Formats: sequence, structure tokens, C-alpha cells
Amino acid sequence: MSKNTLPSRSEDFNAWYNTLVVRADLADYGPARGTMIVKPYGWTLWENMQQALDKRFKATGHLNAGFPMFIPKSFIDRETSHVEGFSPELAVVTIGGGKQLEEPLIVRPTSETIIGHTYSKWIKSYRDLPLLINLWNSVVRWELRTKLFLRTLEFWWQEGHTAHATYDEAEQETLQMLEVYRDFARNEAAIDPFFGRKSDSEKFPGADVTYSIEAMMGDKKALQAGTSHNLGQNFAKAFDIQYLDKKNEMQYCWTTSWGLSTRFIGAMIMTHGDDYGLILPPRLAPFQVIIIPIYRDADQKASVLESVDNLNRLLIDNDIRVKIDDREELTPGHKFHYWELRGVPLRIEVGPKDVVNKSVVVARRDIVGKLGKQVVSTDSVVKSVSNLLVEIQEALLKRATNFRDSNTHEPDDYKHFQEIVSEGFALAWWCGDASCEIAIKNETKATSRCIPVSSSEGNKGTCIYCDKDAIEKAYFAKAY
Amino acid sequence: MSKNTLPSRSEDFNAWYNTLVVRADLADYGPARGTMIVKPYGWTLWENMQQALDKRFKATGHLNAGFPMFIPKSFIDRETSHVEGFSPELAVVTIGGGKQLEEPLIVRPTSETIIGHTYSKWIKSYRDLPLLINLWNSVVRWELRTKLFLRTLEFWWQEGHTAHATYDEAEQETLQMLEVYRDFARNEAAIDPFFGRKSDSEKFPGADVTYSIEAMMGDKKALQAGTSHNLGQNFAKAFDIQYLDKKNEMQYCWTTSWGLSTRFIGAMIMTHGDDYGLILPPRLAPFQVIIIPIYRDADQKASVLESVDNLNRLLIDNDIRVKIDDREELTPGHKFHYWELRGVPLRIEVGPKDVVNKSVVVARRDIVGKLGKQVVSTDSVVKSVSNLLVEIQEALLKRATNFRDSNTHEPDDYKHFQEIVSEGFALAWWCGDASCEIAIKNETKATSRCIPVSSSEGNKGTCIYCDKDAIEKAYFAKAY
Repeated sequence: MSKNTLPSRSEDFNAWYNTLVVRADLADYGPARGTMIVKPYGWTLWENMQQALDKRFKATGHLNAGFPMFIPKSFIDRETSHVEGFSPELAVVTIGGGKQLEEPLIVRPTSETIIGHTYSKWIKSYRDLPLLINLWNSVVRWELRTKLFLRTLEFWWQEGHTAHATYDEAEQETLQMLEVYRDFARNEAAIDPFFGRKSDSEKFPGADVTYSIEAMMGDKKALQAGTSHNLGQNFAKAFDIQYLDKKNEMQYCWTTSWGLSTRFIGAMIMTHGDDYGLILPPRLAPFQVIIIPIYRDADQKASVLESVDNLNRLLIDNDIRVKIDDREELTPGHKFHYWELRGVPLRIEVGPKDVVNKSVVVARRDIVGKLGKQVVSTDSVVKSVSNLLVEIQEALLKRATNFRDSNTHEPDDYKHFQEIVSEGFALAWWCGDASCEIAIKNETKATSRCIPVSSSEGNKGTCIYCDKDAIEKAYFAKAY
Repeated sequence: MSKNTLPSRSEDFNAWYNTLVVRADLADYGPARGTMIVKPYGWTLWENMQQALDKRFKATGHLNAGFPMFIPKSFIDRETSHVEGFSPELAVVTIGGGKQLEEPLIVRPTSETIIGHTYSKWIKSYRDLPLLINLWNSVVRWELRTKLFLRTLEFWWQEGHTAHATYDEAEQETLQMLEVYRDFARNEAAIDPFFGRKSDSEKFPGADVTYSIEAMMGDKKALQAGTSHNLGQNFAKAFDIQYLDKKNEMQYCWTTSWGLSTRFIGAMIMTHGDDYGLILPPRLAPFQVIIIPIYRDADQKASVLESVDNLNRLLIDNDIRVKIDDREELTPGHKFHYWELRGVPLRIEVGPKDVVNKSVVVARRDIVGKLGKQVVSTDSVVKSVSNLLVEIQEALLKRATNFRDSNTHEPDDYKHFQEIVSEGFALAWWCGDASCEIAIKNETKATSRCIPVSSSEGNKGTCIYCDKDAIEKAYFAKAY
């Protein structure tokens, strides 16, 4: 057990994660089995993620809307793959206002069907295209084995739904939103994911093609952290989404959908955290700086708190998210651990000597102990803090990317492949046949994660499993 | 029918409203009976409202969180008034993952019960108080007669839930949030509502006291536009929310809840709109300015569009929400009506003459026709537009407040009361007895809306209905 009495991350990653999520005040279980409560600290993190994503959605021409959570049951049945994929996971409302409903209502597991129904009414002509809408909401999938953030009965996410006049535009949109997710992951969450196309057996029920970003967690397992689907004309045909083209002929639309959820919070925890707790990337952290006043008597207290208040105001004025922990009942040491557990990127300690010297002590969360500490003059504290926040953001990205790369290998043969995926990612030639995927999964627990876009180019190798001619390379790993 | 082919507001307010909501692209009905789709234009308005409210919630110390939509059915039964109030309106999930559930789950109609359950786990000591949390979500109430924004099966809102150590603190919080709603209504939505305590028969099921803001709509009916509840110890006792006080003794908490919903969008439509369509208050409008380029040939088009682009960039740089309508297939006249219908506060027309004269024509939405038009020099356009947006905001508030006041009267006797409430609000002495309220409702369709906080002070009159000694004055009106 570490100082924050967390299970050791290296010894029991799973217990470390489960304990940390609750102890760091991110989330809690709800009273109905498998449901999640996101606590204010976790929700503020989610709000910061939402802002960072929403800005990118709007910059690429999307607007938000609100759609009902209830979907008539018959809708789900209209798209063949969709019904097969989602039927086992549905929550069904059968009673409303005290009466048995004639047609049961599904609580949305995702909104492609109700969107399809609605777009078929809204879209008349090529002038109505492209239609670019995003929803921020929660969805319900009846998961049996749940884990906070990663798999819960209800989770929060955004789901984008677009309709286009041509296949090319839809494919371009699908790839654009994959790039938005990748950019968000890299530049906001300090996670550089692998990205590519999903294999047929791993794609979204109802999609022609699914793309995903796949991040490596601290235990070297993969986490699918965002998906973007080219739905082809599958939902357009199932829901009759047609438009009159410039030649006055009716055409089916081409649609896409894409989503990123609170699951991504799990990705951040498992990528950056350590034995002391969370390490949150500065760009998304609810608090970027925690200020701890240190004093022994009333005189010291007065001068320290005055200094702390000034510092606080100065940082707020410079758009730095800061909080003072002035609780009387806790020692400074307790507070250090408290905020280390919660992953605040920078701690500022202000004691009586600092007041006299017109300086403060700044401690980095990503480098625990003396090495991460420095004395900073009060005059330059804003600049130092701003620079340090950028440095920490970069350091986290670099550390995570190095970890990813040093645990990703191209196998020489199947035996080597088995060794690699027992603890890491393998980038391996593959014949594209689902039977090899299944055999690999059964023998190693590793699944195909994604197929990099350019991986079918150049000289081909042979399938890592069956030795037949390969068509492309895919990442394989054990996954959440 | 007006130019925008809306039903006349004065002749058929109800048809005007129903047509306008759909035609102005605010909302649409969903496929499941009584559900609502909020379209991008309506949702952007909601986002602006959310930001204006959220800023106020955070400034008063609240943080947001996410709570599950599913509540075990047994929870609803724990608070006696609550179960009576909400049981007839519940949507019940009985099947999950293909199996009949042992305990059915309720889709939240409001979250006091699940909050109560959770707060009882989170709150241990006086140090955990006050607990100040807000949720942005949607809730479900099985309404039979629905109307977009005003009454739908599912609606979006925020629900604040706080816990306190003393009655006084809870009462202070309840009144503070009422004031936040009032301030939001006045200063963002240009609606100055009446406010006060609800009568016992009109209060929230489970509250000791409910306060509300009550706005007068364009048809002189009342709309309850936000509520704030002092829940006393009702939920604390039903869910065992206790804390250890400074003397180490267990005490029950005092809790509050408060909410404002997408219903408020209905209030804005019905307060400010006219025969031409919506009139949106500048502070909340999705677009504050619409720019319409006007030209006859390719030469004119080139110079006008260049000028329009410069203007657009200038306004964006000054944080004005602006859009250019450069659609080729519509005439300027069509576009004028299109954006009048959608209530954009200012229209800027740019034609070839304007380009030459380095000026633009600015037209106010709240003053349709020549009177609302002026020529503004390009040099001072930012200042003019900014000033006009403030002027329009003030003018809307003034107009709505005058309308409210000229249709609110103190009755001399019951006959006079009946005349007043047939078309307006009556502020009348009342004995406080529910039987008078019921008789008034049966005879006039008017209900008690709210009791102004200081209305029991000074010389008392006699009850407008029964002539017995009155205890306070209340607003009475027909209501939505």
C-alpha cells in the first residue's frame, strides 16, 4: 500500500484502479445495479473534456441538438445488424402513467434509429445536406460485468450523426471526426492513441466501416477510446432518408455517426496515474494548481493567508484554475497526499519564510519528491506556473507515448506474437480472415484493435496465424 | 395569416404558438407519443441559457455532477407526499438485458430520492456541509396532454440539490436560488416575473415550502418558470441523511432542491413573440445579428460579399454572434421573413450603395418596418450594433414589464376578481384556506400562482372569496 493507502499499481492494477476512482472522488456506484454516479470532481473533469471536444465539433460545422431517450421498440428492429448487436442489451419501458404500453419503449442504447426516422422527415433536398448534428446525452446498455467509467449500465457521451449527398463526403466526415478524437486525445488528454479501421467482426452493428482510436493503458492492455462510423446507406435505406438531387432525382443519403464517452476518463486514469493516485493533464484538470498555506501560529497564519489570497487572485486573473486548501483540521502533509491522490498537476506551498523571501515552493505532481520541487519568486509566479503547466502536459504525453512504443512490437512468428500480446501490442500481418482473429483470441485473449489506414501498402507479409498471404497489418492486444 | 403565414397571435394565441415553435426550427415532436426533439436552433438557445444559469450556480458555490436516470422503485415510496405526487406519472423499466427485473426501475421524474440515498452515504460530519450540487439532465413525467416546451413526456432541465446543517441555511439557500432565477429571467431573458411562496396545494410533493417565479405570457396567462423548494427534513428523514455535529451528536440535515427547465423557452416565445414570429432577447439569441447581402449582378455580388465578409469578421472579433445568409436560391425579402420568424434581434442589409457609401442598413426585430431601420457608418458599426443589442434587450424587458403591470390588478370584490382573472393577474387578499382556492379554481379557472414574500405585512383585508379575515395576498391567474 502506498502513502495514500492505494493498492500498488504495479502489483494489482485492477484493484489500484477500482480503489482510486472512488477514493479520488471521481465516481461512485448508483443504487441500481451497475449504474454510476459521477461526483462533482469527476464531472468537472468531464465538463472540461466536453468543452474541448465541443469547440472542435463546432469548428467543423456541427451543432448540438436534443433527442428523446425513448425509442419505439419497432425502430430497433429495422436495421438487421443493429438489432442483432443491441437486442441483448436493451432496457425496456413497458409501463407508463400506470398503464401497460401498447408498444414498449426502448431507453436509447445509441440514437441511429431515432435519428434515421427524424432525418427522413427533415431532409428533402440536396440543399438540406450535409446535416451535421451532435448530441450530448447518456445512453443505456445492459452490461452484466460493470467497472466505473469503463463499462456501466448507463454512461455519458456525445454521439454525432451526419447525413451527406455522397459516399465520399460521408467517408471524409468519418475520417475527419476520427482525426478530431485523435487531436483531442493527444493535445488535451496527453494520450497519443493508435488509430485505424476496425475489423469486420469488431465494427459497429450497422456500420459499413468503423474507425477507432486505441490507447495503451498502464497495464499494457488496449482501450477503445473513441469510434467513428461510416454507416453507408444502411440506415438511410432502413429509415428511408432520401433527398432530391440537383437533377430532381431521389437519392438515398450516406450517413455517419461517431462517439466518445466518459470511458475516456478511465483512459486518462489508467494512462497517467501512479501509486500516489491520479495525474491529470493540466489542460483538462479541474484544478491546475492547489495552494497549501503552512503556518504554526496566529501571526504566521495572518501573513501566510494574506499572501495566499493574493497569489490566488493573481492566478485566477490569468485564467489558471486554482484552489486554496485552507482547512484547519488537516496538516499540510495530509493535504499534500489528498491532492496528490486527486492528481492536481501543481502544488504551491506558502510558508512564513516564503512570505519573507517573496517566493513560493512549486511542486510537480508528475515528479513526486524533491526532484519535482522548485522555489519561484512571487514576481514571476504566473509565468513559471504557466510554463510548468505546459511542461507537465508535454511530459505526460511523452511518457505515455514512450511507454506505448516500448510495448508495441512487430512479431517474427506466432510464438513471438504470443509473447508480445501477453504484455503489450503486436502490429502483425493478417490475412483478413475472421477465423484467424477468433483463433488468436481464443489462444491469447488478444483481439484485433485496429488496422492502420496505410497498412495494406508496400510489400505484403504472411498472416501471423495461418501463414497465408496477408492483406494488411493490424494491432492486436488484450483489451478492456 | 401574417407574412410568415403564422396564425394571428391576437386571434389564436394557441395556434400561433404551436405553429411558431415548429416553423421557427426550435423543436419537433419525437416518434414516441409526447416526446420532444429540440432542433439545433432551439438547442443553441438552450445552451446559451445553460451558460447564463451555470455561471450563476458556480458563482454561488455549486458544482455539477452526473446521477443515474434509473431509480429503484422502492425509493419513490419512501417519502409520503412524494409518492402521492409522482406515482401517476412514472415510466417504469421492467425488462433489462432480455430478462424481467426483480425490482422495476423508474426513469427519474426528479432526483430527490436518489440524491437522498446518496447524500446519506456521502455526508458524515458537519465538515461535509453544506453540500451544493447541481445536475443538468432530462427527466420523464407521463403527461397525457402535451405541448412543445411547456409539457412533454421528457424534458431537459437543471435540478439543484443541497444539504445543510440548519433550517436557516436551507431557507437562505432556497431564497438565494429563487433570486438567481429571478435575476436570470430579468437580465438574460428580459422577463421580470412575479415571485413568492406557493400555496400548500400548489407546492412540490415533499417540500415544506416551494417558492416560484411566475411570468405573464402574451395571452395574459401565468407560466411557472422556475421553482425553489425548502424540503425541510422530509427527505433527510426518509433517506436517513444525518451528520455528526460539532458536539458529536447525530443530526438530520436540512435539504433543498430547485429547478428550471426547457419550459422557460416557451416563456420567452410567449412573452416576446409577435405576428412575424419569435423575438429573442439579444443576450440569449443563437444569432444576435443576421447579415443579408443584396445584389443584382456579378460585379455587385463581388463587392457586396467582400464587404459582408469584412463586417462578419469584425463582429465576430467583437464577440457578437453573427451569421451571413448568402443562400443563392432565396431573395432578400424571403430572407428577411425567414430571420424575422426566427427572432434574430438585428438584421444588417448590405447592398451596392452601402458599399460605396461605407455604410450598412441596420433593422431592429423588435420594431418591424421603417421605424426600426437606420443607416450606420461602417466605421462605427461595432459600437452601433453593441448599443442596439443593449437597447433591444432593455426595450423587450420594458415592454414585457409594462404589459404585465397593465394586466395585473387588485380586485375590489369577487365580481371584480372574476373580471380581472378572465384576462390577467389578480393580486388578492386570501384567508389561506385551500377550500377557497378550490372554489375559485372551479368558478374562474384561475389558480393561486404565488404569495409575495412580504404580502402578509401591514393592514389585513378580507378574503376575496369567503370574506373571512385574510392572512396574506396572493397572485391568482389562469395558468399553463
